[in-house]
Amino acid sequence: MDNAARFAALEDREAIRDLIARYGPLADAGDCAGAAALWTPDGVYDVGGYGEYRGRAAIRALLEGDMHQALIAGGSAHLLSPPVIELAGDRATARTYSVVFHNRGGQWEAHRVSANLWHLERTDEGWRVGRRINRLLDGSVEARALIGGG
Amino acid sequence: MDNAARFAALEDREAIRDLIARYGPLADAGDCAGAAALWTPDGVYDVGGYGEYRGRAAIRALLEGDMHQALIAGGSAHLLSPPVIELAGDRATARTYSVVFHNRGGQWEAHRVSANLWHLERTDEGWRVGRRINRLLDGSVEARALIGGG
Amino acid sequence: MDNAARFAALEDREAIRDLIARYGPLADAGDCAGAAALWTPDGVYDVGGYGEYRGRAAIRALLEGDMHQALIAGGSAHLLSPPVIELAGDRATARTYSVVFHNRGGQWEAHRVSANLWHLERTDEGWRVGRRINRLLDGSVEARALIGGG
Repeated sequence: MDNAARFAALEDREAIRDLIARYGPLADAGDCAGAAALWTPDGVYDVGGYGEYRGRAAIRALLEGDMHQALIAGGSAHLLSPPVIELAGDRATARTYSVVFHNRGGQWEAHRVSANLWHLERTDEGWRVGRRINRLLDGSVEARALIGGG
Repeated sequence: MDNAARFAALEDREAIRDLIARYGPLADAGDCAGAAALWTPDGVYDVGGYGEYRGRAAIRALLEGDMHQALIAGGSAHLLSPPVIELAGDRATARTYSVVFHNRGGQWEAHRVSANLWHLERTDEGWRVGRRINRLLDGSVEARALIGGG
Repeated sequence: MDNAARFAALEDREAIRDLIARYGPLADAGDCAGAAALWTPDGVYDVGGYGEYRGRAAIRALLEGDMHQALIAGGSAHLLSPPVIELAGDRATARTYSVVFHNRGGQWEAHRVSANLWHLERTDEGWRVGRRINRLLDGSVEARALIGGG
């Protein structure tokens, strides 16, 4: 790679790190439209145990729903680990762990611990999520393959 | 932005990431002066449930106090999540989750799970913390707004 | 530092962040050879409570062993925190927390919370782990010194 390409790779990795780091704060703050806007207009959030939500309106509705609202009203933290990023031009993938902590009487429990594969796209708005696949790390072969990139 | 400004932004983000990553290890090692030196000389650490500590001597005294010393003597880990960073010249903000794990008979419990807003300043010593605001994610509206940047 | 050295430092830090971020996914996916290949051929993994494993074959055998296999079959997540990185030419150190979550009937427990000191080397294959020292943060003075860099 020449210097310009190496510099662009650093900037892309930084932008992707930033995009992913923004999900948790928006989800916990209850900024459902803001969280949905991390996806492309027709992006997909495939949530282990719940199903596939396609498009910003559907992702927003998921977060506005009773389940997510009860979680954040009680006190929650959607942590995402430092990602493993693979760039491929205007596409990229990232793999992260997510840990959702849930407040239970002043202690916090790890309510969901998941593998996440993010398919990312460079758009006119910057990097956005084309598809996020989330699977609980409960021993399932699928979740283990997802986090491992296999 | 021209190339020099883009490069400077990458370096600033890296330096801020490094600054924040250093807090936990210093806190858990019991290097109280080292942890306090991450702040500006008159910086503030506003700790949810405890109050506001202004200046390095006050922050050091907080960490040298019985509560923190008992925590680290029993086994603790002050984890900070990948930050959401916003640069504004010689100022910046970062938002992170913090999770304090506490050893209880060979298992670790998430003792405090908090939202943190870091107001950062570029100084002659490099980036330093002007004010860190920490609030427990126990469902409070204030903590949710803090992590969301609202 | 001149511009070329500053750019190289950013790239080195990015490469080290990437190397460390890859450990957990390989460990949880059960890609034992892949995880071992993050080390130099004669690299060492010194695991608190277990002992010292020298060379890729030994590290691979550790991960292929009954203990690790039972852990990942039940559902696990090996999270690593954002590292504190210190570059020194073709060597570097990084310090991270690790948290191993273990699925227990649909809840996850923090099974091991540890300090990790990574001694890293620039090789023909890129940055690799020369020695990783892991110690449980159970209040031991050694673990506290390890995470603090003391």
